[in-house]
Amino acid sequence: MSVYTVVERDQLEAFLTHYDLGQLVHYQGISAGIENTNYFVTTNTGEFVLTLFEQYGFEELPYFLELMAYLAEHEVPSAHPLADQSGQYLRELNQRPAALVRRLAGKDVTTPTLSQCAAIGKALGRLHQISPHFPHFRANGRGETWRHETALKLLPLLNESDAELLRAELTFQADYCSQYLPRGVIHADLFRDNALFEGDALCGIIDFYYACNDALLYDVAVTVNDWCSEADGSLDHSRVDTFLNHYRRHREFTATECELWQMMLRAAALRFWLSRLLSLHFPREGEMTHIKNPNVFRDILKARMHIAPLATA
Amino acid sequence: MSVYTVVERDQLEAFLTHYDLGQLVHYQGISAGIENTNYFVTTNTGEFVLTLFEQYGFEELPYFLELMAYLAEHEVPSAHPLADQSGQYLRELNQRPAALVRRLAGKDVTTPTLSQCAAIGKALGRLHQISPHFPHFRANGRGETWRHETALKLLPLLNESDAELLRAELTFQADYCSQYLPRGVIHADLFRDNALFEGDALCGIIDFYYACNDALLYDVAVTVNDWCSEADGSLDHSRVDTFLNHYRRHREFTATECELWQMMLRAAALRFWLSRLLSLHFPREGEMTHIKNPNVFRDILKARMHIAPLATA
Repeated sequence: MSVYTVVERDQLEAFLTHYDLGQLVHYQGISAGIENTNYFVTTNTGEFVLTLFEQYGFEELPYFLELMAYLAEHEVPSAHPLADQSGQYLRELNQRPAALVRRLAGKDVTTPTLSQCAAIGKALGRLHQISPHFPHFRANGRGETWRHETALKLLPLLNESDAELLRAELTFQADYCSQYLPRGVIHADLFRDNALFEGDALCGIIDFYYACNDALLYDVAVTVNDWCSEADGSLDHSRVDTFLNHYRRHREFTATECELWQMMLRAAALRFWLSRLLSLHFPREGEMTHIKNPNVFRDILKARMHIAPLATA
Repeated sequence: MSVYTVVERDQLEAFLTHYDLGQLVHYQGISAGIENTNYFVTTNTGEFVLTLFEQYGFEELPYFLELMAYLAEHEVPSAHPLADQSGQYLRELNQRPAALVRRLAGKDVTTPTLSQCAAIGKALGRLHQISPHFPHFRANGRGETWRHETALKLLPLLNESDAELLRAELTFQADYCSQYLPRGVIHADLFRDNALFEGDALCGIIDFYYACNDALLYDVAVTVNDWCSEADGSLDHSRVDTFLNHYRRHREFTATECELWQMMLRAAALRFWLSRLLSLHFPREGEMTHIKNPNVFRDILKARMHIAPLATA
C-alpha cells in the first residue's frame, strides 16, 4: 500500500560515494509507513536506513535531523543521522531530500510489559528534560486551529451521537490554556510502533517527523493513551503508574500539570480521533484501503472523562 | 496485531514426524491475516506454510481442504494441502486443527496490470468451470440473512446520507433472485491480497476460507470490484474487459447472468461495505486498530448504479 520512490542500484551506489560507509551489499524497500520512502541498506561496514522524504522540503527537514542528532547526543535512545563527507545530514536522491541513519536493532511491541512501559517512560522523561534547550522551533500542525477546522469538516459526516460528543468536547476543551505549562520539543506521535525493543530493552525511538514545540504534558498524554490503554479504552493503571514513575526520574510535573492531566489526556485523545476520522472520510491516495480505526480514540476519549489529577511530588 | 497461537520448536518437530517432509530447519510467524495463525516452515526438503485454525473446528475444515485439493488437481493455480503419513490433511497442534501446504512463490500486487487481470480472470473462469462438480456443500455465511441482520445493527450508527443509501440499496436488491443463475463453489474473497504473482505470472490463489456454494457471477463481481476499480470507485473498463474476456475462455455467461451484471456488482459491493462497517463499529479484538476503510466500498457501490448489462456471447 505504500507510496514508493524507486531507487535504482546504481543511483544508490553513487549516493553512497558521498559517505564513508563502505560498499553497497544489499538494499530492500520497507513497506511500513506511507509518509516517506524507506529502505534498509546494507554495506560492508554496517546496516542503515535510507529515508527519501515525500512530504517535507529541504527547508523544513533540518529541524527534524538536527533534533535527532541532538537527542542521540543527549542519551535519548534514538538513531543519529549520518553526515556525508561535507558534514551534511541531508542530500538529494532521485529529486527527493534523503538522509541516512544507522539501523537500530529491535522491533515494535503490541502489548507492552510493565518493564517496557518503564523504559519508554524513562526515555520520554529524558527527552523532555533536555528538549526545552533545543535551539530551533516548529509549531504544532495539529494544534487548536487544525482541531477546529477538522471538526467543522467532519461534523456533517458523523452520526448524531458522535457529533454530539465532538461538539461537547470542543466546548469543554476551549476552556483550557496550555500556555503556562512547561514547553519544549515533543515527539507528538510516540505510539508503540515508533519504539523498537529487544525483550524489555528499548533500542530506540523512531519517526520524529511530527515533532514540534508544544506542552510537554501533551506528549506524555499522547504516549500514555497509546501505551497504557485497554481494548475498551480505559487506562491500565499499573502501566500508567509504572510509566509516570519512571518519567519522573528525569522530570517532575508542576502543580498546574498535575491538575491538567485529565484535560491533556482528553486533548491527546481528541487529536487522534479527529485525524483518524479525517483519514476515514477524506483519505489520501495511499490510505484508501487500510486505515486506523477512529473509534478506538473515541472510546479512549470517553474513558478519560473521570480521570483524577496527578498526585503532586 | 495478529492473534497468534505460539508453536514451540519441539512441538513443531514432533508434528512434522507425522509427515514425510524432512527435518525442520527454520520457522517464522506470518503477521498478515487475523483469521488464522500462519507460519512459514522450512525443512531440508522444501518450504511450507503451516496454518493453525482459530475459528473453524474439525467438522467444518474438511470442506476447505478437500476443495483446495480438488482445485489444485484440476489446474487451478493454488496450493495442494499435504497429507500426513495416514493420508489426512488435518491434524491437531497445540489444541488447534492444523494443516500444511507447500509454500507458493510470488507476492500480492497493489495495482494490477492488464496481464495480471487476464491471469486472474482465466484462473477464476477455470475455477468456476470445475467447481459445480465439487461434491460438498457449504452455505454462504454472508448471504441475504446476514445482510439484513447486519444492516439492522448498523443503520442507527450511520450518518443520514449513508443510512439513506443503505436503506435504498436493500430495497433495490430485495428485488433480485439469484436462484436461476449458474451455481457452484465460489472463492467469495478473491481480492488482490489473495493472489500471488511473479511478474505477470499467477503463482497461485490463496485463502479459501470464505469459499461456499453460491452464484458464480457473484464471485466474478466480488473479484472485478476489487481488481478493476479506480481510486474513486469507478470501474477501469480496460481491466474489466481483459478480465472478462479471459474468464470467458473457460466459462461463457448465460443471458440471465449478462442481464444481472449490474445487480451482482452492487450485491458484491454491498457485502463488503457492510462487513467493513461492522469491523469499524463492532470490531473484534484483533481488528481494534487497523481496519479496512468501509467508504471504499460505499463509493464502489455508488459507482455501480449505472453499469450496463454484459454483452451476450
